[in-house]
Amino acid sequence: MRRAEKRTMKTAKDIWCCLNIIGTMPSGCQGDLVTHSRMERIFVTGSRPDVRVPMLQVSLSAGAEPRSMTLYDTAGPWGPWGPYADPEASRTMQSSDGLPAIRQGWLDERLGALGAGARVRCGAGTRPVTQMQLARLGIITPEMEFVAIRENARRDLLDQADPILRHHPGQDHGARLPQWITPEFVRDEVAAGRAIIPANINHPELEPMAIGRRFRVKVNANLGTSAVDSTIANELDKLILAVRMGADTVMDLSTGRDISATRQAILRHAPVPIGTVPIYEALERCGGRPEQLSWPLFRDVVVEQAEQGVDYMTIHAGVLLRHIPLTASRLTGIVSRGGAIMAHWCLSHHKENFLHEHFDELCAIFRMYDVSFSLGDGLRPGCLADANDEAQFAELRTLGELTRRAWAHDVQCMVEGPGHVPMQLIAENMTKELDWCLEAPFYTLGPLVTDIAPGYDHITSAIGAALIGWQGAAMLCYVTPKEHLGLPDAEDVRQGLVAYRIAAHAADLAKGHPGAQARDNALSQARFAFRWHDQFALSLDPERAQSYHDATLPKEAHKSAHFCSMCGPKFCSMELTQELRAYARDKGVDTEGARELGLAERAAAFRHGADIS
Amino acid sequence: MRRAEKRTMKTAKDIWCCLNIIGTMPSGCQGDLVTHSRMERIFVTGSRPDVRVPMLQVSLSAGAEPRSMTLYDTAGPWGPWGPYADPEASRTMQSSDGLPAIRQGWLDERLGALGAGARVRCGAGTRPVTQMQLARLGIITPEMEFVAIRENARRDLLDQADPILRHHPGQDHGARLPQWITPEFVRDEVAAGRAIIPANINHPELEPMAIGRRFRVKVNANLGTSAVDSTIANELDKLILAVRMGADTVMDLSTGRDISATRQAILRHAPVPIGTVPIYEALERCGGRPEQLSWPLFRDVVVEQAEQGVDYMTIHAGVLLRHIPLTASRLTGIVSRGGAIMAHWCLSHHKENFLHEHFDELCAIFRMYDVSFSLGDGLRPGCLADANDEAQFAELRTLGELTRRAWAHDVQCMVEGPGHVPMQLIAENMTKELDWCLEAPFYTLGPLVTDIAPGYDHITSAIGAALIGWQGAAMLCYVTPKEHLGLPDAEDVRQGLVAYRIAAHAADLAKGHPGAQARDNALSQARFAFRWHDQFALSLDPERAQSYHDATLPKEAHKSAHFCSMCGPKFCSMELTQELRAYARDKGVDTEGARELGLAERAAAFRHGADIS
Repeated sequence: MRRAEKRTMKTAKDIWCCLNIIGTMPSGCQGDLVTHSRMERIFVTGSRPDVRVPMLQVSLSAGAEPRSMTLYDTAGPWGPWGPYADPEASRTMQSSDGLPAIRQGWLDERLGALGAGARVRCGAGTRPVTQMQLARLGIITPEMEFVAIRENARRDLLDQADPILRHHPGQDHGARLPQWITPEFVRDEVAAGRAIIPANINHPELEPMAIGRRFRVKVNANLGTSAVDSTIANELDKLILAVRMGADTVMDLSTGRDISATRQAILRHAPVPIGTVPIYEALERCGGRPEQLSWPLFRDVVVEQAEQGVDYMTIHAGVLLRHIPLTASRLTGIVSRGGAIMAHWCLSHHKENFLHEHFDELCAIFRMYDVSFSLGDGLRPGCLADANDEAQFAELRTLGELTRRAWAHDVQCMVEGPGHVPMQLIAENMTKELDWCLEAPFYTLGPLVTDIAPGYDHITSAIGAALIGWQGAAMLCYVTPKEHLGLPDAEDVRQGLVAYRIAAHAADLAKGHPGAQARDNALSQARFAFRWHDQFALSLDPERAQSYHDATLPKEAHKSAHFCSMCGPKFCSMELTQELRAYARDKGVDTEGARELGLAERAAAFRHGADIS
Repeated sequence: MRRAEKRTMKTAKDIWCCLNIIGTMPSGCQGDLVTHSRMERIFVTGSRPDVRVPMLQVSLSAGAEPRSMTLYDTAGPWGPWGPYADPEASRTMQSSDGLPAIRQGWLDERLGALGAGARVRCGAGTRPVTQMQLARLGIITPEMEFVAIRENARRDLLDQADPILRHHPGQDHGARLPQWITPEFVRDEVAAGRAIIPANINHPELEPMAIGRRFRVKVNANLGTSAVDSTIANELDKLILAVRMGADTVMDLSTGRDISATRQAILRHAPVPIGTVPIYEALERCGGRPEQLSWPLFRDVVVEQAEQGVDYMTIHAGVLLRHIPLTASRLTGIVSRGGAIMAHWCLSHHKENFLHEHFDELCAIFRMYDVSFSLGDGLRPGCLADANDEAQFAELRTLGELTRRAWAHDVQCMVEGPGHVPMQLIAENMTKELDWCLEAPFYTLGPLVTDIAPGYDHITSAIGAALIGWQGAAMLCYVTPKEHLGLPDAEDVRQGLVAYRIAAHAADLAKGHPGAQARDNALSQARFAFRWHDQFALSLDPERAQSYHDATLPKEAHKSAHFCSMCGPKFCSMELTQELRAYARDKGVDTEGARELGLAERAAAFRHGADIS
């Protein structure tokens, strides 16, 4: 671990700002004039020196106002990257044993230091373990403070800057977003179950984050080896790509060999929460025969994964015996793998789902490690025809009951949602979830709004994801272009993640998340001012944006050219608008007041003075 | 022209079905059992033998029910393509002078035969010319009948098939979609101005289509040479790709050299309506100096383009002198090129926009050729911050007045819309347009729901497009991944079009367009039954879907494999569901009735009989 720590320090672009959460940025951080946009990892310190919250600072070119923007960042020590990376630091870190254990001190304090040689924490004593438990006791954990600072992303600095303030009011569907996130607010949301901080006490490398309707909408990326393809090294590469591209959490859905080793590698290199579906590993252990599954076998898998540090687990405890016949008349039956496994088990034994029967025991385990539930929607619709049917909603009601039971154990809990749903049926999913599951965070897969675009389901589902995110879903599980067709490669992970970051951000904007529009405004200003490098730096995928610009106008000179390849050098609408304004300024005419002024004199002068050809 | 006709006949896969619009399919068309999905162009004949409406028939593999699906098709003689194409026919046709002139006879009848040597039609006499004029006289033109047959796409054949009938009710935001499109309905919608059939009398190659809120949502693709890049041959390739990928109309936005020759080549090879922005060519003619533009110069350009056969033209007549100062405080000013050109002209001369001043003369010209207006939104917002502002809505009000004036001349008219708009502000655009522009078709560019994703704006805008299409936009102008960054290549055209066909179809589904869900259901059934080739054939991009499947499971044997690469061969949820159902069937248990039956006996038998490992 020491080696990794050292290498992280070597990620030379880090700037160690010591800021209070309501402090202002020291001049040193933004003082020197850069002529080229730059991206750096900075840290905002909280009430104690070891609460150091990483953010991405984009320094903009001369002419930009404000001169820098702070962005919420998920990459951890893996960022910044692409044109902004220190490639050597990144390479050495990749071959390390793991990331620095930034939560170690907090956990030692809370639960006592690990004994000599001990590797695993287990909250078996009397001390409170889960964030929910702590929140309900009125305690603000370092994780909660971290989350609060992180969510604000130094928005207070922007509030002084105009025109960054021109934000449209949102329409929040009852979410009641706060203007400023305080640690107390985070605590209260976690205590109420409206938000979770997935943070296993055996995942000290984690940079804490929150999933809840009153926070930024989050994005999950699925990775994992399968029996058909892929290796641990591949999956690790995908993990790094995923967090760099903005994945807030990552699910390891490995099903082939080396499940445990893959997960270990992922956890030790993951700055984001890691989720799993433990029934997959359980099934591997009984040779792929669902009927041979049992509670003791499953429990062992869960404990092992919890000890490794898995932050949340999908548990298909809502697939009840009485729900299965409801799928009989469906067009595509049961499409969730976990759901199908449990349905098979139930029918084989004609017994109730053992996950449901032993749910309280599961809660007791989750509570010892602070594993969060992701209550799986094993009966989610696999096509439009099956959307919002009796099977789906029967399960959702059950998930509401399970949510209550998890909360009774002080265990954090979110609820999974569909699937394939046409646009006009999406709202019903959200309102029923809020109602039946008492505002527990809703974590949806898309939904895909049509079935007819295999190869492009990142798009079909981003449409549904943006809509349901707007309506209140707290986290959106990405879908890649390969969905339904094959295993995603690196390019698919990238496409899927950007599509979902678009959906999540569009949802934040529509809800009226305070400050969300600042990045849009800054990028659009850069676009209008032909600050191409700033435009790239502020975009969701700077590398791709630049490469597309290079494809038509490769020269560096074009990166400050006052035209784009669409209009060409001869006539550009943005250039014209700028000239109109410059002309007015030269003449001492405030363009704001142009309406009040006679335009005739100016027109004549303009006609002779300006020649844009 | 004879040569092209012959080649079209050689596109051997055509089947010449002679069907009445309410007839049923002769058994010969679907009788023979295919073991592999097949795609063919078929024709449905209307009330007269020369109304032959092309559609795409997908014949499905053994096991599919129904055995074929008829799809709305835009490719004209250029389809079917990809794995379903006759490559030789396609190659020879590409080097031809043009497509067959299917409207020639209708135009001869209506307007008199062209004199010897005459190339151009001009409706200067007393005979009615425009579809609106004819509709208002109560006349049903062959174009209107063609549109009616086309829109229905033989849905009557599907109505008999179950489970294709499980369609969710829509939420149509007042569109009141008819269950069956009759020629009378088309006539009434055109007469009322709620729909247009862009069909210049000099574009006889056109396969007529309608744009209106009560029809399928349509998609436009922009092509065109620019000063920086591209050639006529390139643009022709892109046209063919665009119509094959489902573009309902194509705009030629060429700005460089050879504008006229490029347009001529495009028109003669276009089975879809072609739109232009004539101010671009006008600007080229005065050396790129907007202040040198004049009405006579512009008029000449419009007449020339109308004589070539351009079906609709974007006219920025709503950019009024008094609107320009409203853009002064904008973040990105005027971003429409046409809008910026006209603003420049207005300010240079301190005169009112000559397009507005001469609008009635323009209507008189449009009426002679049946050119449709696309009233340009020259003041559309170029970033979220500028969305729904005073400038934008002032122009929209003016477009409403111009719509009335166009209609007074019996000229067809649609209205262009934004742009960059966050989700929560989209509805206001649609409701104002319907109100102020009297339900004239709304033709929107996206809108993009965030500014921060250059390189992925086909996705940011597909989200907005799906939403506004649902709310009532009649046509969606595509955006490619290169928007804001560079000129689209073939892959960008493809990505943009599929994203927009997804948006348009998602909108149709959400509105409750009758029959829209049939394709989703058929594809999902194919997916559930592991009929991989059928799944590809029914998808928006069969070629891409298949290539993605090949990437993980390349062998032909995998195309009937009862698993996919996601779950691998060991466990597949869909396979399990099928086994459960097969088991129940074998035991004489109706799965529908499973709820009523004791499951215990079945469970024991199932446990011993089925082993899915």
